This record gives sequence, structure tokens and C-alpha cells, in this order.
Amino acid sequence: MVIKRLVEEVDELIIGIGSAQLSHTIDNPFTGGERVLMMKEALIEYEVDLSRVYIIPVPDIEMNHVWPRYVSLLTPPFDVVFSGNPLVKRLFMESGFTVRTPPFFNREVYSGKKIRRLMLESGDWEQYVPSSVVRVIKDIRGVERLIEICKSDEVFEGDGK
Amino acid sequence: MVIKRLVEEVDELIIGIGSAQLSHTIDNPFTGGERVLMMKEALIEYEVDLSRVYIIPVPDIEMNHVWPRYVSLLTPPFDVVFSGNPLVKRLFMESGFTVRTPPFFNREVYSGKKIRRLMLESGDWEQYVPSSVVRVIKDIRGVERLIEICKSDEVFEGDGK
Amino acid sequence: MVIKRLVEEVDELIIGIGSAQLSHTIDNPFTGGERVLMMKEALIEYEVDLSRVYIIPVPDIEMNHVWPRYVSLLTPPFDVVFSGNPLVKRLFMESGFTVRTPPFFNREVYSGKKIRRLMLESGDWEQYVPSSVVRVIKDIRGVERLIEICKSDEVFEGDGK
Amino acid sequence: MVIKRLVEEVDELIIGIGSAQLSHTIDNPFTGGERVLMMKEALIEYEVDLSRVYIIPVPDIEMNHVWPRYVSLLTPPFDVVFSGNPLVKRLFMESGFTVRTPPFFNREVYSGKKIRRLMLESGDWEQYVPSSVVRVIKDIRGVERLIEICKSDEVFEGDGK
Amino acid sequence: MVIKRLVEEVDELIIGIGSAQLSHTIDNPFTGGERVLMMKEALIEYEVDLSRVYIIPVPDIEMNHVWPRYVSLLTPPFDVVFSGNPLVKRLFMESGFTVRTPPFFNREVYSGKKIRRLMLESGDWEQYVPSSVVRVIKDIRGVERLIEICKSDEVFEGDGK
Amino acid sequence: MVIKRLVEEVDELIIGIGSAQLSHTIDNPFTGGERVLMMKEALIEYEVDLSRVYIIPVPDIEMNHVWPRYVSLLTPPFDVVFSGNPLVKRLFMESGFTVRTPPFFNREVYSGKKIRRLMLESGDWEQYVPSSVVRVIKDIRGVERLIEICKSDEVFEGDGK
Repeated sequence: MVIKRLVEEVDELIIGIGSAQLSHTIDNPFTGGERVLMMKEALIEYEVDLSRVYIIPVPDIEMNHVWPRYVSLLTPPFDVVFSGNPLVKRLFMESGFTVRTPPFFNREVYSGKKIRRLMLESGDWEQYVPSSVVRVIKDIRGVERLIEICKSDEVFEGDGK
Repeated sequence: MVIKRLVEEVDELIIGIGSAQLSHTIDNPFTGGERVLMMKEALIEYEVDLSRVYIIPVPDIEMNHVWPRYVSLLTPPFDVVFSGNPLVKRLFMESGFTVRTPPFFNREVYSGKKIRRLMLESGDWEQYVPSSVVRVIKDIRGVERLIEICKSDEVFEGDGK
Repeated sequence: MVIKRLVEEVDELIIGIGSAQLSHTIDNPFTGGERVLMMKEALIEYEVDLSRVYIIPVPDIEMNHVWPRYVSLLTPPFDVVFSGNPLVKRLFMESGFTVRTPPFFNREVYSGKKIRRLMLESGDWEQYVPSSVVRVIKDIRGVERLIEICKSDEVFEGDGK
Repeated sequence: MVIKRLVEEVDELIIGIGSAQLSHTIDNPFTGGERVLMMKEALIEYEVDLSRVYIIPVPDIEMNHVWPRYVSLLTPPFDVVFSGNPLVKRLFMESGFTVRTPPFFNREVYSGKKIRRLMLESGDWEQYVPSSVVRVIKDIRGVERLIEICKSDEVFEGDGK
Repeated sequence: MVIKRLVEEVDELIIGIGSAQLSHTIDNPFTGGERVLMMKEALIEYEVDLSRVYIIPVPDIEMNHVWPRYVSLLTPPFDVVFSGNPLVKRLFMESGFTVRTPPFFNREVYSGKKIRRLMLESGDWEQYVPSSVVRVIKDIRGVERLIEICKSDEVFEGDGK
Repeated sequence: MVIKRLVEEVDELIIGIGSAQLSHTIDNPFTGGERVLMMKEALIEYEVDLSRVYIIPVPDIEMNHVWPRYVSLLTPPFDVVFSGNPLVKRLFMESGFTVRTPPFFNREVYSGKKIRRLMLESGDWEQYVPSSVVRVIKDIRGVERLIEICKSDEVFEGDGK
């Protein structure tokens, strides 16, 4: 919904998929590419005009000061950055970008962490996720993957493999 | 044209933009993100159905054996790989992918190397490039950038900075 | 004992030493190479046929999806993967490998974490480790190293140096 | 004060600024370069002879065993290492360097962690920092940065961006 | 033959497989793991005592000054380095290792570059390679791979993928 | 001389030592730290006021677009960039920095490449180098190192180790 609203305000919108190199961890169970797929399907479900949207996976670079410039390496040029994350906002501001907080952001209800916990506890996670994304997660057997990952104690020690 | 033809044959097409981290070199004067932009504009110019296309920048990983798997980390799942490049074909085949050579590929005429040389020699490069891409290159002053890069002898020693 | 049993079942066995680039941390006090040495000495002590075994140090790559393919870059080709770790099993399965759980795995008793704690508390760690490995650890003054590492508060913040 | 004392004992002193690639985290709010600047200003304030001092930013390398050699790649040759950190001392000793503990080190009072906490709680952090460094931190609006960083939950999950 | 001779002179021998992360290039057509396999097979063919030999794949680190220390991270401890390569000898010497030139080294006849050229030109490469290695190369269809790689012009621009 | 002149024009000068991670190659025979040392000695010889100068080793990052921002991560904040290199100038300009060409730059006479060739051919390289730098190069036996490096054919294939 945030994206649907933003697309109406701007000429073109670039959606960055962060930490795109990570997957199979509790915080990032899905690959960058799977998350690109979910986003695309959700945009189609919500009838967002795809000719004005980019979905760009962005692997991490472990240097906060450099990160905004690195994002701009992998994306078409942009003028304004939308984020609700204080660190992200700060970093882009220090890099000279105009930063705005998205129009609404119901973060407690639509929280990834909460949704992943519901998945692990066989709760009703599907109500918080677009139905097209539910379909993708089922196709790739995402809940089963998350449950298996959590059996591993290595997961709690770090993402590293 | 290759892409326009391919889109008709498949359900969805993922276009990978390789060496996405490189820019400002003779072989890769444009950033990964600028190349994503050019591709998107060309697809719109050629009236390709964008709801069935992904454009994904893929930074290099310096391990050929691992590269196809790494590509599949950043892209939605795919079944068939289209490439005319023998090394790329070989690597994806060894990784278990079905590989096909694109339906046509007039590589001598539409060669990046040749087009870049024309840019450097004030030749008529524009005839070999979609007009939407010509517009992007002019917007970002791409020819001027290429000419300046070539004045530097470091360029000839490597991409490194 | 797990390895001794496995070697009887297969033609050749490749033993991967993971996180080989790490050392001097509480979880990985020994270098990849020191761990290779311990493994080799233990195999000799247990009279395993070395002509059918490889011991390969594998540095981390911080991409779970790509990791099994990366392992196969550094090792001779293999058909079956043995692991008791749910994440490792999942990752290799998704990469198309046959995965089996090793025949026995008394993980509570022979736990690295527990043995390292005994080393720190001057407990009787030696009973849980092959005597050839005890010898290597003494040669490289490994217990002294572990104790010194733990005096550093940086250790608790991360592996980084 | 530690440095002032050390400079009197040695011909030349190299001050390494570790984890130089990090910034905008709770533990490392300032860039490597900002920390170089603070150090230089403090040395001038304390009238240390700059012709005998080097200040060298050293980005992390995630391999403890290799780290001392890597430090020596980025710095002029040195004979003695001064550190109060047990891990650092151990690593340099194992690499064949002479290691000494600096003459005094009032670590509880002049603790970075404590000073950063005071900054966050509007406490009197300035008394624990040379006045030249207070000036630098105000110039770059460092306290404001630290407070903003801490609003972000990502900070608590790791340094990564 | 060099290795067979060396094993007689020393207690244990560690064979490092360099640039282990590279493959599918003209200079390094085979993966690190495939080269480990070839080496093991050749040692068995030449009846070298495997209980006194390690074969360790060593990925590149792009820092010459640091490289010998990095090698020692992935290998058991060693006292003497054998190499005929002036750069390798120099680097290990500067890192404090004893360096010796192997007893014989008929490099013109048994040159990798020459053998690869014979493979490409359908020459009699097999006479320069142990028969066990010929078998491995045939099993993995190595000559076919090399020929295909060379059709790609990217190969001539660099190893990168 | 360029630096001596520049220091008179600006408040403070930061001297970046590029490709600081490289050494023992024909183009970069000396480590980043050895080059820092040479620079410091030369500044003292030329009586440059060291309280207004920083010498900062900057390892490479293989992303031209991001490089200027990365440089600013490791250095104190700066307003103006001085360089005679067209690529460097272009990159900093695109990153929003003011760029100026240094007041003079007798590059043909004082060329690193030329000086290194003289070293290799036992020519009179010393006349082109400050006498303090000649002393450093002799102390570290730099000419001998360069000659040995050039005996290795690997040098001609790339910097990699």
C-alpha cells in the first residue's frame, strides 16, 4: 500500500531489495531474487503501473558511509529517497539526497519479524501478506524452509556459512 | 530485437545486467543502474510487455564455477538460459540449466565495442542504438564521459580504482 | 568415529573444514590449517585409509544459497553429502545434492562448545578428544591461546579484526 | 596521554585506526577519516611532535591469523607493538612481533562505550574527551548522528548496510 | 616427479593449489577441487606415501605482502617453502620463511601453458601428463571445456564473470 | 614539489596513497605503508609543515562510481580535490567535489614507470627521486626486490597471488 501510494506521487519509483545476497536465515529466509519475485507479483496484484517501477536487488556493502553511493551504482538515477528507517534516512541525507518519510507505514501490524514468527508457530500469517505473495511462498515451500532453518543452531550464531 | 522476440516465446524473461559494479571504463562506461535504465527505456520504446520482464543488475563474482548459482541468487527462479556467449552457455550447462542460443544475434553490426569506438571517433553511433537509449546517453552526457575516461592512462592498465 | 564409519560406506570421503579463514575466536580458536592437521592426525590414529580421504579447508562465503556450489568449487566432485546440521542439509538439498544424515552423531557428549568450555575452566577436556589431537593442541599451546582470547572484550563483540 | 608518553619512548609512533571502514553504528559512530582527524587534532592540542607520528586508518580483514601482517601492509615498518588488548597482543606475538603493554591505560574512566552512552543520555561526555576532539564532534554534529542511529532497530541487528 | 623427490627429503609435504577459486579460463580451466583430485590421483600413481602429504586449495588474496601469511592460515604449520617462482620465493622470504628451490624443475617441457595449447590444437598433450591425470581430464571432459572456453571473447578480456 | 606548492595554497592537505593493498608488482613494487614512509620522509626533506598534512593509504575498491565516496570514508573531510588524472577528476566531479589540476606536473620527467625501468636497467634512477626516498628504497632493498619480481612470469599475467 505504501508503494501504491508513492507511485502516484512520483514519476518513477525504484524499489531496492536490501541484503539481497542473504537467504536461509531467520531474518532473511528468502533469496534476493525470490523477494524481487514477491514484490513484482504484489505490484501486479495491486495494479501498480509497472512501466514506472524498478525492482532492484542490492547486496550489502559493509560500509555505512559509502552505502548510499553504492545503491546509486546499481539503480537508475534518483532524486528523492523514501524510508522510515532512521539510519537509512541519515545515511542518504549525509550523502546529499532529499529524504522523505513515506506517507504511511503501519509497521507494527505489517512487521516481517512478526510474520516470520507466525510462520514458525503455525499462526495465521497469510492475513498480513498479499495473496500473490502467499502463493509465491507456497510455491517455493517457504514456510517449510523457515522451520528447517530454525532447527539449526548455527542460525543463531550468525548468517555466515 | 532479440529480447522482443524472446518475450514472445516465454512466460517471463529476466534480463541480467552483468558486471553491474563496473563503470567509467572503456568496456563499461556506464553504471549498472544506468544500463538498467537504458534497457527499461528501450523495452518501452519497443512496446515490450513490462509485466513479464525483470531487469536485474548482477555484480561480478570472480568464480566462474559458482557464477550461475550466484546469478540465481539475485533473480527470480528460471528454467532456461538464453545466451550466445560460449563461456556463459558452458557455465550454465555445467550448473544443470537448459541453455538455448537466442533466435538471432547480429553481433557484428550491433557490437558494443564498435559503438563505443564510434563514440570516441565522433562517428555515427546513434544509428546502432534505440532512440530511447540515445536520449539516456545524452542526458547523462555519456559520450563526453567516455572521451574523458580514455584520456587517462590508468584506464588501459585495468578497471581498478 | 563418524568418519571412520563413513569411510567404510563410500569410495572416497571429502572432509570439509568450514569457516577455515577464522581463528582466535571463542568458537573457532584454531586456524583452518591447524584444524586440517588435527583431522589428519586423528585419521592416522584411527587407522583410516588416507588414500580415500580428502581434507579440504573451506573459507566462508556469506551467501547461503550459493554456498554448496562454492564448496564444490574447492573439492573434488561428490555425489552424496553427509551432515547432521539442518541448515547445511537444506542448502545442499536445494542445490540438487543427495543428503544423508551420518550413521551416528553423539553430539551432546562430543560438542565443540562443551570442550572449549572445559578448556577455559581447566576441566578434563582431553577425554573427549582423540589423543593425537590433544598432542597437536598442546604443541600449538592451544588452551593457553583460548584463555588469552577470552580476556579480550572484543571477542564478545564479533570475530572482526 | 598514552600516546604522548609513548612518543617520548620511541623514535616514531604509528597510530592505527582500526575498523576504519565502519561508521554510523553504536560502537563506531564516526568514519575512519573522522577518527583520523580527531586523533590529529588531539595530538596538536597535546603538543605531540607530528614529524614522528603516523596516523593510519586500517579497514578490517576478517582473518585474525592474517591481521597483523595486513596491518604491516598499510603502515611503515615497525618493531614493537603497543596494545592493552589481549587478543591484539596475542595475534602480534604469534606473528613474531615484540609486544608491550602501554605505560598506563585508565580504561574504565576513558572508555569509548561509556562516553558514547553519556552522549546518548545527554550526560557530560565532554570532560572525558580532549577539547579539540569535542570541537570536531560538534563540527560534524556527531552527537546528533549517534542519537539518530540509535533510533534504528537495524543498528541492533548488526553493522551491515 | 618433483613432489616424489621432495617427499623423500621432508617429514611431511603440503602441496598448495593456488588460485583455487578460478576455473573455466584459459590459464585455469579446472576448478581448485578438480586440481586437488588430479594431484591426489597422480600421487597414488607415483606411489607417494599419502600419510605424509597434504593437498590444500588456496584461493587468491589480492595482497602480495600478506599472501604467505594467508597461505599459512589454510595449511598446517610448515618450516620450509619449496618454489621455483622468483616472486613466490621473495614473498615467503620477506615473511621470514626458509625458501628452497626444488631439486629439479624441467619447466620448459612440463609447462602448463604448453600443454593447454596442445589440447587446443589437438596435439599429443597426454605424453606430458601422468596417465591418472589424463583419466581425470577425460572424465570431466576437460579438453572439450577448454575448447569451448576459448570460443568466448570474454576470456581474452579477463577472468571475471 | 607539487605538494610543497599545494600546501601553501590550502589550510590542510590530504595525500592519498592509492592501491595501497598492492605491492611486489612491477607497477606497485612497494607496499602502501612503505609508500607512506617515503612520502613522509620526502615531506620532511622538503620542509613541508607536517601539522597541516595527512598521508592516508587507500586500498582499492573495484567500483569507480563509488570510489570517491569510499576515499572520503578513510580521510578527514575535504572540499577540493587535486589531480591531473582525467579519470580521477571525472569521478570526483560526478560525486559533487570541486576538482582542480595541480599547479604544475612535470609528468614525463618524474614518471614512476620511467623510474622503475631505470631501476631495472641499472640506470641513474636516483636523480629523479628525493634523496630521502632514495634512502628508504635502499633500506628496504627496493631495487633488488623489483629485479627479483621481474624474473617471475606470473607478474606479467596480473597482480594476483
